[in-house]
Order: sequence, then C-alpha cells, then structure tokens
Amino acid sequence: MSKLFNELMPYLEKSMAIDTALTLLSWDTETLAPQDAADYTAKVVGLLSGESFSSIVNDDVKKLLKELEKEKAQKELSENEKAIVRNLIRKMQQMEAIPKEDYQAYSEFAAKAQGIWARAKRADRYEDFAPVLEKMLDYQKKFAACRAKKGEDLYNLLLNDYEEGFTKKELDIFFSKIKESIIPLVKQVAAKSNAIDRSFLYGHYDIEKQKEFCRYIAGYVGFDFNRGVIAESEHPFTTNLHNHDVRITNHFHEDNLDSAIFSVIHESGHAIYEMGVSDELTQTPACNISMGMHESQSRFFENIIGRNHAFWEPIYKKLVSYFPEQLSDISLETFVHAINKAEPSLIRTESDELTYSLHILIRYEIECALFSGKATVKDLPELWKQKYKEYLGVTPKNDTEGVLQDVHWAMGSFGYFPSYAIGSAIAAQLYYYMKEHMPFEDYLKEGNLTVIRDFLRDHIHKYGSAKPTMELLKATTGEEFNAEYYIRYLTEKYTKLYDL
Amino acid sequence: MSKLFNELMPYLEKSMAIDTALTLLSWDTETLAPQDAADYTAKVVGLLSGESFSSIVNDDVKKLLKELEKEKAQKELSENEKAIVRNLIRKMQQMEAIPKEDYQAYSEFAAKAQGIWARAKRADRYEDFAPVLEKMLDYQKKFAACRAKKGEDLYNLLLNDYEEGFTKKELDIFFSKIKESIIPLVKQVAAKSNAIDRSFLYGHYDIEKQKEFCRYIAGYVGFDFNRGVIAESEHPFTTNLHNHDVRITNHFHEDNLDSAIFSVIHESGHAIYEMGVSDELTQTPACNISMGMHESQSRFFENIIGRNHAFWEPIYKKLVSYFPEQLSDISLETFVHAINKAEPSLIRTESDELTYSLHILIRYEIECALFSGKATVKDLPELWKQKYKEYLGVTPKNDTEGVLQDVHWAMGSFGYFPSYAIGSAIAAQLYYYMKEHMPFEDYLKEGNLTVIRDFLRDHIHKYGSAKPTMELLKATTGEEFNAEYYIRYLTEKYTKLYDL
Repeated sequence: MSKLFNELMPYLEKSMAIDTALTLLSWDTETLAPQDAADYTAKVVGLLSGESFSSIVNDDVKKLLKELEKEKAQKELSENEKAIVRNLIRKMQQMEAIPKEDYQAYSEFAAKAQGIWARAKRADRYEDFAPVLEKMLDYQKKFAACRAKKGEDLYNLLLNDYEEGFTKKELDIFFSKIKESIIPLVKQVAAKSNAIDRSFLYGHYDIEKQKEFCRYIAGYVGFDFNRGVIAESEHPFTTNLHNHDVRITNHFHEDNLDSAIFSVIHESGHAIYEMGVSDELTQTPACNISMGMHESQSRFFENIIGRNHAFWEPIYKKLVSYFPEQLSDISLETFVHAINKAEPSLIRTESDELTYSLHILIRYEIECALFSGKATVKDLPELWKQKYKEYLGVTPKNDTEGVLQDVHWAMGSFGYFPSYAIGSAIAAQLYYYMKEHMPFEDYLKEGNLTVIRDFLRDHIHKYGSAKPTMELLKATTGEEFNAEYYIRYLTEKYTKLYDL
Repeated sequence: MSKLFNELMPYLEKSMAIDTALTLLSWDTETLAPQDAADYTAKVVGLLSGESFSSIVNDDVKKLLKELEKEKAQKELSENEKAIVRNLIRKMQQMEAIPKEDYQAYSEFAAKAQGIWARAKRADRYEDFAPVLEKMLDYQKKFAACRAKKGEDLYNLLLNDYEEGFTKKELDIFFSKIKESIIPLVKQVAAKSNAIDRSFLYGHYDIEKQKEFCRYIAGYVGFDFNRGVIAESEHPFTTNLHNHDVRITNHFHEDNLDSAIFSVIHESGHAIYEMGVSDELTQTPACNISMGMHESQSRFFENIIGRNHAFWEPIYKKLVSYFPEQLSDISLETFVHAINKAEPSLIRTESDELTYSLHILIRYEIECALFSGKATVKDLPELWKQKYKEYLGVTPKNDTEGVLQDVHWAMGSFGYFPSYAIGSAIAAQLYYYMKEHMPFEDYLKEGNLTVIRDFLRDHIHKYGSAKPTMELLKATTGEEFNAEYYIRYLTEKYTKLYDL
C-alpha cells in the first residue's frame, strides 16, 4: 500500500464508522423508533453528521488528496485505491464549500423532516409539510450555491450528484424522447383498457400470508437472509451497513396482492446489488453506487424479471397455494396480464411500467420549476394536479395521493427522481444485451436465476462505484447509454400485450 | 452557565452522540442484525468506541475537569452541572489509564463475543466459548490493573464500578447474612414443595396471545409506548438512546406462561426508570445510573408489585380472558401461589424470589475465584455444577443450563451480578418505607399504580445518577442501605405463603 494512501486510511475508517451509525439511526427511525424520540435523536444525528463532515473535510485530507491526485502517486495505487481516491475527491468537491455548522444544523433538521412529512401525508395536511419543504429547499439551494461555479445551474449540480454526466440538457433530450413515444402508446393502451382485468388482485389477501410469500420470493430472486433482513415501513426502501448487512422494507395492503410482491422484488434488486459489492470495496467510499445504476438493478428485478411471463411459470402455483380461494380459478396467463396492465394512475410506486416514466417526468418538470423560480412551494399542490391531468389524464382528489405521496423531498433528495427513469433505461439496455448472449427466458422458466444474477454481479455489482456508471454500462454491453432500448422495450412489450 | 462548563460541552455532546450510536448498534445486533454481519459491524463498533474514548480521554477534558473540581469553579455550577462533572470525573478515572488502541481492539472483540456465546449456548459447546471468555477476562484484568492503586484488588475495582462503595468486604458481609437466613428458609420451603402447584403454568400458551398480554401488562405497569418499543431477543434486556427512546426485549416460550410475563414486568421496571430521568439529565453523563439502583427498580416492579396478590386482583380476569381454556378453572389464589412458588432450580432468570439470591451468590463466589486465581476458565463448568449442588441441591445436566446460561461474562460484565442482589435488597427497603407512608396494597387493588410510580419517579428516577445511589436511598427512606429489610421481606413472605 502506498504511504500516502496509508495516511488517508484513519480518516476513511472514522468517516465510514460514523456514516454506518448514521445509516442505522435512519433505518431505525423509519422502521422502529418510538414516535416521541424524534427531537432527541435528531440532535444525535446532527452531532454525528458534523463529525462525519469534519472526518473528511479537513486540511489533512485535502492535502493528502492533492498529493494522491498527482500522476506519480497514482502509479503507486492499486485499482481499488484509485477508485477510492476518485470517489473521495468527488465527495470533497460536494462538501468542502459548505460550512460545517450549517451542515450539522441541516442534518438535525432533516432527521425530523421525514416524520413531519409522514404525519402530514397521513392527515392530508400539505400546509403542515410546506414550511419544512421550504426550509429543505432553501438548504439545498444554499449548499448547491456554495459549490457552484459562476453561473452554474444549481439543479444541474444536484442532478449530477445522483448521476454523473446527467444535467438538464441530457435529461431534456431523454424525456422528450419519452414524451414523443410513450404518450401516444399510453393513449392507445388506455383505449383498450377493458382488454385486461386486474380486479381479482384486489379483495381480501391475508397480510401474514403475503408476508410469508414475500419472504419466499425475496429468497427466490436471490436475497440472502444470512446477510440481510426485511422489516416494514411507510415507504419501502433499501439500505445497508455494509455488504454483509443489507436491509429492505416492505409495506402491505390487505386489499391488494401485487403491491407488496413487486415492492419486495424491487427492493431485493437493490439488496442483491449491495450484497454483490466486493469485500474489498464495502466500507470504503468506492461503494457509493450512482442512483441510476442502483435503480437499474431494482427495476431490472422488479420488471424485466418480475413481470416476465417466464418468471412466473415455475412459481405461480406456489402463489396460488398461498391464496387458493382467490387464485385457483385464475390462469397463469390471466395473472401475468394483470400484473402488466397499464393504465394512468395517481401513485408512482404502484404504477405500471409503461406509465411509470410519466410519473417521473412530472416530478422532473416540477423540480426544474422549483429551482428556476417558476414555481414556489405554495404552488406545488396545484401544479401537481395540473401535470397529472396533462400527462396522465387523472387528477388526485387530495394531497395525500398527490404532492405528498413521495418521501424524497422530505429527505432533501432533489434531483433523485430522474434516476428512476435512467435506471429503467439502463435495465432495458442490459436486457437486450443479455437476451442476445444467454437464453434469458429459458433460465427464468427453469427457475434458474443464478446465471442471470452472476452475470450482473460479475459485470456490475462487484465493482460498487469503483467504475463510473456509464463506463460500467459500456464495458458490459459494449455500447454507450442508449435510451432507445427503453422505448423499444416498452413499445414491443405493450404492443404485444395489448395486440396493438 | 459557567464559562469552564461551557468549554466542556462540545466534548460531552460528541461523546453522547457516539455512545448513543454504540447503544443502537448493540441493540440492533441483539434484536435484528443478520447473522453474517458480525465481523464487519464489529469493526464499526471498534472504531466508534475508539472515538468515544478519545472524545473524553484527552488533555483538554482532563485540564477542564481539573479546573472544574476546584472549589471556586464548583460555586459557579448548578446542581446538575456539578453532577455531570462528578460523573465525568468517575468515568475519566475508569478510562484514562487504558491505552486507546487496547480499548478499541477490546470493543471490536466484545462486539463479536456475544454472538459466539449465543451460538455456544445453543449448541451446548462450552469449549467454543472458553477461549473468548479467557480473552475477555484477560482484557478486564488488564484494564483494571491499569488503573489499580498499588496492591488494590482488581475485582474490588470492578465491583465498585457497578455499585460505588461495594467491595468484597461489604459483599461478603451481605452474602453471609443471606446464607445464614435464606438457606434454612429454602430448606423449610423445599420440604413443603407439594403445598403449591405450578403445573398449570406449563402447557400450551399461544405465543401471539402471550405477546398481546405482555404488551397490555407493560402498559398497565407504566411503560409508555410513545417513548419506547418492545422487541425480542435471546436474553431479555433494557436499553435506551435517551429518556424518550427506551427499549426492552422479551423472550417467549410456548410451554410456559409466566416467564414472559415477569420478564416484561422486570424490563418495564428498568424502562420506567429510564423514562423518568429528567430531560435536563438525559443525554448527559449524569444519567448513567448505578446497576444496583437500576436492578432495584426492575426487581421492585417484577416482585414487590408483580408477584403481589393485590396487583393481580383487578387484572387476573383479563389474563384468564386470553387463556380461558387453561385458566378458567384456576382461582386467583391458586395463580398467585403458583407465581410465587419457591423451589431450587437451575436458571437464574426463571428462578423465584427466594432462591434468586443464591443464584447470585454462586456467581459472586465464582467471580471471586476467577479473579483471585483460585479457579481458571477451564474449571468453570465443574465449579458451577458443584456450587449448584452445594447451595441449591440441583445439578445442571449440561452447560447450556449451567455455566453458559447468562450473557454477562460474554459482555465483559464481571462484577455486575451482585447488583441484582443489592437491587433486590434496595427494593425491599423501599417497600417497607412506602408501605408505612401510603396504602400500598390498596393502590394495587384499585389498579392505581400512578401514585407508586410517581413516588419512585420523584424520589429516585428523575435524578438519574445526579445523586449517588446510597445517598438517594437515604434521602428517600431516611435510612442507610440495610440488607435486613430484604431478609425480613423474604422471611415474612415465605413464612406466610408456606404456613411455616
């Protein structure tokens, strides 16, 4: 190990330890902590965030990084060490211009914001959340302004944090393609909405049985219960302390069967990614995977695998055995059609593959408006309704199923949403490559997901963020990021499904 | 606030934040974390423990404490600030002589030890745990030696950590009184073992129903679910992040009813204590309550309240409603006798009030032997069996129900066990005082635990460790610690129960 890198290690380790604690505190708050704990625990989160900040943003680390960037020093580094340095430099650039006190105060505030959002959502009281959202937005703008170059667009900075190389320029092109191809397709499908029946997926589905089946299917797709746990939360999510402790949550509805199933497959996709990061990279800065790549794997498992006819062939009878009363008269064919039915709807996380990208488009446009000053926090409920009407032809009857539905803004995640669409596009690109190089559907029919998972692990998961997302995608598929695959995938799939 | 104290604050806050994270990591490991996480998470625990150590043990804090100890500085401090300084000085004395690297390595090791113990216990393989115990003991001896004065006994040092003022001298006197009075009483009771029937407490008791009833009874005795949660673990315990986030665990057996009930009342006693600490003291060093005082409250709730006939009068019918098949023919009288039956047994946590102190005596004598060199780790399984034979007349058939039963040594807690007996004695002393000053049993009969709880909160709980245990006991009861009350309590209770 190079002497310089060796000197960096204690800072990396301290930062990793504190960040792991912060991850656990956040997990615990979402899944278990008692309701009155928030203010006292937020103080702890603020203090630890301040420690995390100064464990990296300090003169010693800055000096070391300056030295490590030099060609001579780089030569002495292993590939992994180079990746760690590269990721750390990126983090330093994002944080060094922010005053520590502000970062700490923000972190304490953010630790409370999610609870306020959850209560406002339950009570349908946007007015309770609005001041928090205002403050959150101010913080994000202020922090972005601290590090922006002269004239640089603040929203672009945030977009680039979640997915390197993606700014409004790239996303405008991406989303205009989506609009052009997907909106007409959605209209064609909507015209044939009676062609597919989903009604049997609603009704009474015992939650304990749902839980059992969801555990089964998580294991079936590759979730390793020796290295992970499943809990419950308002909004399903994945987190991890390291590659040997990966956690997902789920959310159950007694009157619906497929929501929990596809949530758990989605989160298992994230989890399998984290479990696949190599032991050499976990607990280092080179395991902070880009959100686009992360969502590519969750969406790959949820949709390309999970909604595939071939996937259900070997296991549908298992599902029927859990719910014989509701499903024994439902054929595999009918079931697979139902879980793929596309129709304009209000809730992003429950939406089908085809309309999904329009939900993202709406959020992207709203975030653009918020950052350009064309809209204010006060305008959001109305703007949300207008855009849903415009793009999907449906109107939320309240804010709970409208602007309050997602947790992201309460977490300060502005610029995150486009990653879902980028991820879906990467998933489609990977799918076409894999189909060409392996009998993909045959593996699914055999219940053999190992080959598929191994491919993803060996080409993508194990690298963590040691290689940039777009470089990894090119190395895997031999091609640059190409949104056409996504459009082709949706077009082929829905043309066939609806016989268009 | 005094200027000096003000300068101390950032150190206190940093240390508090890191210690809270460590508490949460430990809770999570015991209740949720996946089995393969241990080694990676232990690294995090080691690093954070090192940070915790150096947040307090450093030249700045040492210098500040030296100044704050002076009479002039003390005059400028509030009572709470004085208590914080006093507790911090005690902590500094315990830690400053230990090298940070050793403390960090020990903490990483300790984070793994409990998992190794749990597996060894399940598999009845003492040989798997023995090397860990050996290493743990070496660490504890080494750390005690670091801070011992010349010729000072190392075990005395540890005993004094858990309960200030208690060394082998005081405990030898205490336990010789116990032996003298309790052993003959146990024999008398054993001779009438047929007088009380406990058999109906074994049989099939649905675990989901037990869980529900245990939640009910935790709330009934005063556990506040807005400020606390209940989970499950191998060994029931209580922990807290602060006074607004207090957590207990329980452990259920399908073939026994009262184990889980008395565990949850015991842990609720601990929890009510922590919830009662004042907001001004929580998250400061003046909330680290002595183990004897802590156990006094858990044992007070479990035994003096929970095994009291008057306590069950208003709620026994509730219990019967959960288990009508098993209990509708059992009278309140028979039930209360059964939950108080005394008989020599193998497992401390399941043992009755009368024989309990003998379980503690055995552990105390074994710890004395370990520290004096009269016994080695290798000898423990045999020594354990001998002592159980000698004091209780029963012999464990394996190590799972013998030397492996308790988690304490795997946690490095040598010198802790006597606190259970001291706590039981304090509980009895409080009981006689309260009985004289309030209609104690009448309150229980009315289901009015509020007055009792308020008394304990106002005289004990709210002070955290702002006042030393024995000072608090004297301020509450007007009397020094007096073990005679414990002996009197057990003698009166069991003489009456068994009509001796």
